[in-house]
Amino acid sequence: MTAAAYTGSRTFKIQEPDAGPPPPGQVQIAVAYTGLCGTDLHIFHGDMDARVTMPAVIGHEMSGVVEAVGDGVTEFAPGQPVTVMPTISCGDCPACRRGNSHICHHLNFVGIDSEGSMQSRWNVPADIVIPLPDGLALDEAALIEPTAVAVHDVRRARVAAGDFVVVIGGGPVGQLIACVAQQQGARVVLAELDAGRRETAAGFGLHAIDPTELNLLEYVQQETDGAGADVAFEVSGAAAGLTSAVGVLTTRGRLVMVAIHPKPKEIDLHRFFWRELEMFGARLYQRTDFDEAVRLVAAGAIPARGMISRVVPLDEVEQGFLALESGGVMKVLINCSEAGR
Amino acid sequence: MTAAAYTGSRTFKIQEPDAGPPPPGQVQIAVAYTGLCGTDLHIFHGDMDARVTMPAVIGHEMSGVVEAVGDGVTEFAPGQPVTVMPTISCGDCPACRRGNSHICHHLNFVGIDSEGSMQSRWNVPADIVIPLPDGLALDEAALIEPTAVAVHDVRRARVAAGDFVVVIGGGPVGQLIACVAQQQGARVVLAELDAGRRETAAGFGLHAIDPTELNLLEYVQQETDGAGADVAFEVSGAAAGLTSAVGVLTTRGRLVMVAIHPKPKEIDLHRFFWRELEMFGARLYQRTDFDEAVRLVAAGAIPARGMISRVVPLDEVEQGFLALESGGVMKVLINCSEAGR
Repeated sequence: MTAAAYTGSRTFKIQEPDAGPPPPGQVQIAVAYTGLCGTDLHIFHGDMDARVTMPAVIGHEMSGVVEAVGDGVTEFAPGQPVTVMPTISCGDCPACRRGNSHICHHLNFVGIDSEGSMQSRWNVPADIVIPLPDGLALDEAALIEPTAVAVHDVRRARVAAGDFVVVIGGGPVGQLIACVAQQQGARVVLAELDAGRRETAAGFGLHAIDPTELNLLEYVQQETDGAGADVAFEVSGAAAGLTSAVGVLTTRGRLVMVAIHPKPKEIDLHRFFWRELEMFGARLYQRTDFDEAVRLVAAGAIPARGMISRVVPLDEVEQGFLALESGGVMKVLINCSEAGR
Repeated sequence: MTAAAYTGSRTFKIQEPDAGPPPPGQVQIAVAYTGLCGTDLHIFHGDMDARVTMPAVIGHEMSGVVEAVGDGVTEFAPGQPVTVMPTISCGDCPACRRGNSHICHHLNFVGIDSEGSMQSRWNVPADIVIPLPDGLALDEAALIEPTAVAVHDVRRARVAAGDFVVVIGGGPVGQLIACVAQQQGARVVLAELDAGRRETAAGFGLHAIDPTELNLLEYVQQETDGAGADVAFEVSGAAAGLTSAVGVLTTRGRLVMVAIHPKPKEIDLHRFFWRELEMFGARLYQRTDFDEAVRLVAAGAIPARGMISRVVPLDEVEQGFLALESGGVMKVLINCSEAGR
């Protein structure tokens, strides 16, 4: 088998360990594809060296096929297409005890805090393996994890048919949020600075605007008969995006905080008071979100294939990260199969 | 009749106009008491001269007795004790059309945007007059309006029995929120810098702490077995209060923004994301809140009498404002009755 292990700033080492059989209770997956996300890029840049244990096999957006099962695993059999919901919670912390195990205080995020999917064979606890329907292409299936993020975000916002929704930031997660919200019958506008991303979004049937050319606030006012947007998703991570997200909302409008803002940012709290706005933090997903993401991707309701900008083989993983950091791409997949080398 | 009219920074003029009969659809109230609130103090300081039309009879926390009714008013009769819910909405703006008429875009807040209750006879549209139960003391009834604010805030937070609630700021509204939350079976801690206010709160059966002496975050962690608070009310208007309110919350904890923060303030958005926190702006009240406030005050469930620090006659209204701005008082009432002069 082959594994790509992060060994420090901007470097991966290709290893050829023995696969070994899956331990009891685990499933061995022949990994097909692993998608790269922003967090993986942070790891590549060395920003998360304090958290990962090097050499670190990372990767958490994936698809594959069951290769073998360990003792006691009855719900999976070789040949079954699967993905993984990469979160293992402790079951005992205040978050877990309140039914919020997805944001467990001691969360093991698989692919960061423990071994991930950038390897051709991967042993995973059976209870985080998710079966996939037959016929779903495995490259598209690698988009299920980020789609689950979008489903969770849309659910946090209680988006309903007819709602006017503004998505600030048109990277993969922003576009997936826009697609999921539109699927639910919302009227969606996506604000994105990059022309290439706007073009991609337009190809997905999304209405994408350049907020430096069109006054977003005026546009939303006009489209909503002066009311403002029901929901805004802040996916840009930028101060200006945050200000826009607060500014466009109607009375009791819902702002979902998707982007990571590492430092405290200024926010117009008077407007929260005056208009009784609501803000919801949203992180990761719950099992119901993952199941819905499988359903949406399998149904072709999400343009998963169209999101894939590039596929690189496992032993050229660094090329994937270079493509991601250069911009101009949506999703980069690593082909982790032995055949993909 | 007698009326106190604000005529510019720190000055009121006592007028003796003719009362005249109530117009059709209106009720003439013999005003008993008018409470002073922070907004009234802002007016006294001249900070709202652009909004009020001078000479301005202000006042919106009140109680009284029906003196006469205009043509077409059948639901009230002379002698009936009443208060007023001082909001008149347009019925046609986006907020009104969405059922949020209490935060109408064109709200007429009675006592600021139109004539208020600092007069011995007051003509008011019948549909904002609220009947009071017999036997409720009229000085206590003047506390119904701020109690309705507290009821609304607690309802926005969905406070449930057993919840751990932190109230940041122990002025009248903060203390009323604490009382209402405690009434609903929540465990409440009130953080307040002023020793006198903490003493008042203790007299109401509230647990008030000095956040400069006791580490609030550690205290909440200890009391909640490491979980954090279910709900925090930001009633201080201070940056430090806001930081504390965000910091004490448990996963999916609810922050209610009660205080007015005129300028944007920094907030830890990463924590909103990481812990999936929720924030709700809360302004004024709806009719259901007002009805519940009447019930609570009439039942003696709110220490209304204990909140009244001082009562001054209408023609010494400026003394009331001086007492309020000097601090060390909770609620100051103006005795607006002819007998109170």
